[in-house]
Amino acid sequence: MGEFELIRHYFAAAPCAQGGDGVVRSIGDDCALLALPAGEQLAVSTDTLVAGVHFPEASDAFLLGQRALAVSASDLAAMGATPQAFTLALTLPSASETWLAEFARGLQSMAQSCSLALVGGDTTRGPLSLTLTVFGRVPVGKALLRSGAQVGDLLCVGGELGDAAGALPLVLGQRETTPEISAALLARYWSPQPQLALGQALRGRASAALDISDGLLADCGHIARASQVALQIELARIPLSAALRAFAGEEQARLCALGGGDDYRLAFTLQPDLLAQLQADWPEVRVIGRVLAGSGVQLLDAAGQPIEPPRGGYQHF
Amino acid sequence: MGEFELIRHYFAAAPCAQGGDGVVRSIGDDCALLALPAGEQLAVSTDTLVAGVHFPEASDAFLLGQRALAVSASDLAAMGATPQAFTLALTLPSASETWLAEFARGLQSMAQSCSLALVGGDTTRGPLSLTLTVFGRVPVGKALLRSGAQVGDLLCVGGELGDAAGALPLVLGQRETTPEISAALLARYWSPQPQLALGQALRGRASAALDISDGLLADCGHIARASQVALQIELARIPLSAALRAFAGEEQARLCALGGGDDYRLAFTLQPDLLAQLQADWPEVRVIGRVLAGSGVQLLDAAGQPIEPPRGGYQHF
Repeated sequence: MGEFELIRHYFAAAPCAQGGDGVVRSIGDDCALLALPAGEQLAVSTDTLVAGVHFPEASDAFLLGQRALAVSASDLAAMGATPQAFTLALTLPSASETWLAEFARGLQSMAQSCSLALVGGDTTRGPLSLTLTVFGRVPVGKALLRSGAQVGDLLCVGGELGDAAGALPLVLGQRETTPEISAALLARYWSPQPQLALGQALRGRASAALDISDGLLADCGHIARASQVALQIELARIPLSAALRAFAGEEQARLCALGGGDDYRLAFTLQPDLLAQLQADWPEVRVIGRVLAGSGVQLLDAAGQPIEPPRGGYQHF
Repeated sequence: MGEFELIRHYFAAAPCAQGGDGVVRSIGDDCALLALPAGEQLAVSTDTLVAGVHFPEASDAFLLGQRALAVSASDLAAMGATPQAFTLALTLPSASETWLAEFARGLQSMAQSCSLALVGGDTTRGPLSLTLTVFGRVPVGKALLRSGAQVGDLLCVGGELGDAAGALPLVLGQRETTPEISAALLARYWSPQPQLALGQALRGRASAALDISDGLLADCGHIARASQVALQIELARIPLSAALRAFAGEEQARLCALGGGDDYRLAFTLQPDLLAQLQADWPEVRVIGRVLAGSGVQLLDAAGQPIEPPRGGYQHF
């Protein structure tokens, strides 16, 4: 099967490639065409996943399709954008029909759950990797940025952290555990749910936001730097799942949350008087610290004493 | 040097990352933000270049940066879009400062010549490959599509074809030639000039268009299929450069043009009465055939006799 036929067969025919809101022209020409309503701007983000670096070479194709799109869509959530479309650049060592069918099915499943339409891309031969570019709409001036955190704001997260990092020994087949724990952690690794609705709800509320992909510490460092403030995190307030605590123990679970990455939950800063109403709609939102004058990220132990942050965040080089 | 520092140092600091028309927010947040004037749509295209498949592993980094962006920008030309911005997903086996500096310089040079602003991307570790996503603006309803060719239209190209394919033995170091011929052919391989101004001039004139990346035959096949017509090409009218004819001989030169790809010139269809004025402004535009009822691509030899097309177009799989 030729390259063009491949693309047509597995991707152009996918339901997620059948257009959507604002998609004027999809796969099949030199460019896709997107329309944008008056008063809105386009949010754009590009992410690459490389086999052997971001996921095991022999990963299940369905799960990989799901995860790749979730990881990218999470950047739209972080900006408070309404999801619109995506392109897929897929590099493959060989063209296995089974692999492509499963991958397309996983992609389709996440595309549907995120309301994202596949509008174009490229298929090339080479070592397995995927680059997704996602597009979303956001009203002018309403995008959530990393740079608006104010001294006195609360530091919040969109839910339990560390599960995906904790799942790594399971992903790599290095450890076993009960089916319940395994299922819970692996689901958070393979099908993270981008917090798109929460991101949109935070428009006009959160003073700064991002999605946690490099690990809580590294990502809070990004907010602190962009906002020129310090962020203080109370270790005891970081929400951890029962599955992760049972699997890794309390201390390791906390390290997974601080440095592990791959959570794809939102972290954001908020004026204290906005918390009660937000938590009424989003009970999974938790306060984990606050914004102070200064710079960098500070950690407090359960007794409120400053402690040295562990080295955290994944560095590719 | 960490991943974040790398990106900041070589890309965020590049002049092409300092914003531009319609770039509301560039590198440094979870998404870039683009604005679109009322009455315009966004054209989007994604292309991947893989080392060892689309360019030699040991390619000069400056030339690679230049070529990668040119290849992508050419898709904007093909739609008649006004260039706006691009994202770069760069996968590298290791982080060499010299390589990155040269690559960024090459990218910058083409970005400037195409008026494209770097607005975001991703840097990952892995086998060398590049995925660029380009953005352009086009007035509603004015994008050049592959699907509008009408029986009776002329088939035109934006200039001489085959040079880049002919340059391959020079790129791979398999042949030598005079400095003049070598320079002429290698320039067309490493720094193709996307025909952005011609593309914009064709808005409202050309009935169908694309950029020649897979080879004239394969790409004309795309127009024929999308427009549900036949395209007839007169072999003797395909414009070939003096350098290519001297290097490869007349017959090989023609095969390079028909099947070689990598030209990044526009091919388009046009009502005959529009030709004279177009050629007054764009003397490099050449008529190479016409649009007939039917399907597929037909070739005529110098005597006007139908001949069998050679197998053409690059297939990745």
